[in-house]
Amino acid sequence: MTTLHFDTLLLPTGWTDGVTVDIASDGTISAVRGGTTPPAGAERQAIGLPGLANLHSHAFQRGMAGLAEVAGPSKDSFWTWRQVMYRFLDRLTPEDVEAIAAELYVEMLEAGFTSVGEFHYLHHAPDGGWYDDPAEMAGRIATAALKTGIGLTLLPVFYGQGGLGGKPTEHQQRRFASSADSFGRLVEGARRHLAGLPHARLGIAPHSIRAVTPESLGAVTGAFADGPIHIHAAEQTKEVEDCLAWSGRRPVEWLIEHAGVGPRWCLIHATHMTEAETVALAGSGAVAGLCPITEANLGDGIFPGTAYLGAGGALGVGSDSHVRVDLAEELRLLEYGQRLRDRSRNVFGREGQSSGRLLLEAALAGGAKALQRPSGAIETGAVADIVALDPEHRALVAARGDRIIDGWIFAGDQTAVSAVWVAGRKVVAEGRHVDREPIRARFSRTMRRILA
Amino acid sequence: MTTLHFDTLLLPTGWTDGVTVDIASDGTISAVRGGTTPPAGAERQAIGLPGLANLHSHAFQRGMAGLAEVAGPSKDSFWTWRQVMYRFLDRLTPEDVEAIAAELYVEMLEAGFTSVGEFHYLHHAPDGGWYDDPAEMAGRIATAALKTGIGLTLLPVFYGQGGLGGKPTEHQQRRFASSADSFGRLVEGARRHLAGLPHARLGIAPHSIRAVTPESLGAVTGAFADGPIHIHAAEQTKEVEDCLAWSGRRPVEWLIEHAGVGPRWCLIHATHMTEAETVALAGSGAVAGLCPITEANLGDGIFPGTAYLGAGGALGVGSDSHVRVDLAEELRLLEYGQRLRDRSRNVFGREGQSSGRLLLEAALAGGAKALQRPSGAIETGAVADIVALDPEHRALVAARGDRIIDGWIFAGDQTAVSAVWVAGRKVVAEGRHVDREPIRARFSRTMRRILA
Repeated sequence: MTTLHFDTLLLPTGWTDGVTVDIASDGTISAVRGGTTPPAGAERQAIGLPGLANLHSHAFQRGMAGLAEVAGPSKDSFWTWRQVMYRFLDRLTPEDVEAIAAELYVEMLEAGFTSVGEFHYLHHAPDGGWYDDPAEMAGRIATAALKTGIGLTLLPVFYGQGGLGGKPTEHQQRRFASSADSFGRLVEGARRHLAGLPHARLGIAPHSIRAVTPESLGAVTGAFADGPIHIHAAEQTKEVEDCLAWSGRRPVEWLIEHAGVGPRWCLIHATHMTEAETVALAGSGAVAGLCPITEANLGDGIFPGTAYLGAGGALGVGSDSHVRVDLAEELRLLEYGQRLRDRSRNVFGREGQSSGRLLLEAALAGGAKALQRPSGAIETGAVADIVALDPEHRALVAARGDRIIDGWIFAGDQTAVSAVWVAGRKVVAEGRHVDREPIRARFSRTMRRILA
Repeated sequence: MTTLHFDTLLLPTGWTDGVTVDIASDGTISAVRGGTTPPAGAERQAIGLPGLANLHSHAFQRGMAGLAEVAGPSKDSFWTWRQVMYRFLDRLTPEDVEAIAAELYVEMLEAGFTSVGEFHYLHHAPDGGWYDDPAEMAGRIATAALKTGIGLTLLPVFYGQGGLGGKPTEHQQRRFASSADSFGRLVEGARRHLAGLPHARLGIAPHSIRAVTPESLGAVTGAFADGPIHIHAAEQTKEVEDCLAWSGRRPVEWLIEHAGVGPRWCLIHATHMTEAETVALAGSGAVAGLCPITEANLGDGIFPGTAYLGAGGALGVGSDSHVRVDLAEELRLLEYGQRLRDRSRNVFGREGQSSGRLLLEAALAGGAKALQRPSGAIETGAVADIVALDPEHRALVAARGDRIIDGWIFAGDQTAVSAVWVAGRKVVAEGRHVDREPIRARFSRTMRRILA
């Protein structure tokens, strides 16, 4: 058993001083007691918070960070960015993917993310053929998670067609295409790779409405009895127009009417929704998976956040393309998009409520739900995903209670994180992942070769 | 003489390998040679860039970072934030201001800002009376700049009235009010405090249209024959409405028609402009002083950046309220606001142009102009304000040429900065200001006392 003691810690009931947390050998919390002095043998920390789920990741895209900030031939958009991404992934070997994913997960952990939803679509060999192990690439993701210690919810992607109306996949999509039948092999292969990973979870991810037919979407979700289902939806206005032209329905509307969207579902982006869609998604029990930094970088647009939270919707955040991996920045940019649109401040809260705490608690609950990981709160029975902050950090000087969260989210960044435990295993100490150096060295070698 | 050598460095002509930079004892660059090997005795670095001006700062507000992220009584806005700011500044002594400013300037330098435009309005004692030295507070700013080494352009603020139409200043504005006559004493006092500061510059800052009369604005600018003139303009829509009701003109329109706005001027924010105002400001030779992080935090709105740069306008950036001090984030948020509004990417550039380089070079030129500091380019005769980046930083792995800038601006932060020289004096080494520890300790003691 591990015992931690915090001078102050955010419990589901609020900030509490003198908290002792006992962690059982299975990585779950066995007891939480406030108002205590540090027990003998306990590791002592100043400030404790629950670790946050990063609910949307395409790990290999971390290698592209900074490579796509060059203007394209005409009006530059998501769709020109996608061409850069296709060219980049053409070159990647399984070893490359493992090296990039490990670096990414180190960065996530150092930022305070304790679990990741890996929306994994790079399945096949460069020629489009299956690897001997159909889940070779999924296995590399699992290995990166095991080596770094991040909590993993693996979401193998079903990519059944190249575009709406049964359009065949293009040459540049050959590494992620499968049929509904062959997708089953992928999912079972991925399940085997998760066997050695404590508290890992398996879900599925139909890529988007444009990448499935109504029949294949029904087949893959129908064959998957439990576990989370993630799908990209309504990220780009062109996607909304295409879906309207194809079905007479907008993407979120179509999914709610035809796909059985409910509490197992996470709709990634959900940027472009009417008021009716916003209320319907909030009422469905699904999670909106927001990626504010990527959505800003790709020029997607601004999520209708105030209306959605006002209707009781669940949300979480993910770093998606990983152009930047920072928990605090992800949450503040979610808030800043709303502020800029509404020309207002502290847009989500009621009088006296801290914006940082409201954002963090919403993302903790929504992220845990979307990844089906019993986390996001420090309480008995939960997985022990815990973050400690540095009370001497420049953004936290003299901070108490919710001011700690506001300082971290609005004035801070990953350098405020001093220690991180995932399922009770300490993976970040003094702000650095315990294996940062060899993992970064391998990543550097990999990137030098790819970009040479 | 100091000699630096860089494996690669951004010159006005572009990225150049093997650059030797000679710095004279007066802190200016005496020679720059590309294609060289490191001379004996030279300090060797990997990546060099010009240091950037932070053109808009209210230093004491750094102490408020994270304190105002709590929802107010009704629709929360800039105007409720201002109430928090007024309460905070009520308590500050000259010693407090020096301690906070020194911490702020350390953070700026560590982020790669090498000079600051201090828009300084906290002049008087808590009871509203003058200090024995009318420029006591200005002297504290100068001391903080001297101790930390940041380049200073000091802009004492003229705050002549409480609101449009000759409204008297309110009780909570008592620490910054002066008449046009007494303002002259402040300016002369500030000039004396700058005597010991190498390359420091004195300007003036009429606070905003609402804080001056046409007559007093004419008097203070007329009495100040050279040096920069900065003014807040069109940050908030309410301010635009008030100015229209008062004069029949919008703020930027009014300033261009009545105040002689030209190359000495810097209009801070300039957020809300018509197309005609945008073109007129661009053509005036003035600099638009943008503060993207603060403008997002305060819910101001989005600057018409593409139209303004398209019309040939000059711009620079400042961290204003200092809710967060990071050069890379300031520039990327400038770009992201445009992308979110236009639902497009790489909005400023022509085909093949790096967004990071375009943003950085625009801000280097505009910032140097707004502060009247011969900097922003590494060339003979310029002040030696230089930043070195860490080639092993996670955002810069395997980067060359403009990819270095894109990596820093879009994927990086202050942790990518490894060394900084201001006027040839090395003030940041291995990512840390040389006096970070004592300055932070004093700041922490100050904040604990203020917030107790």
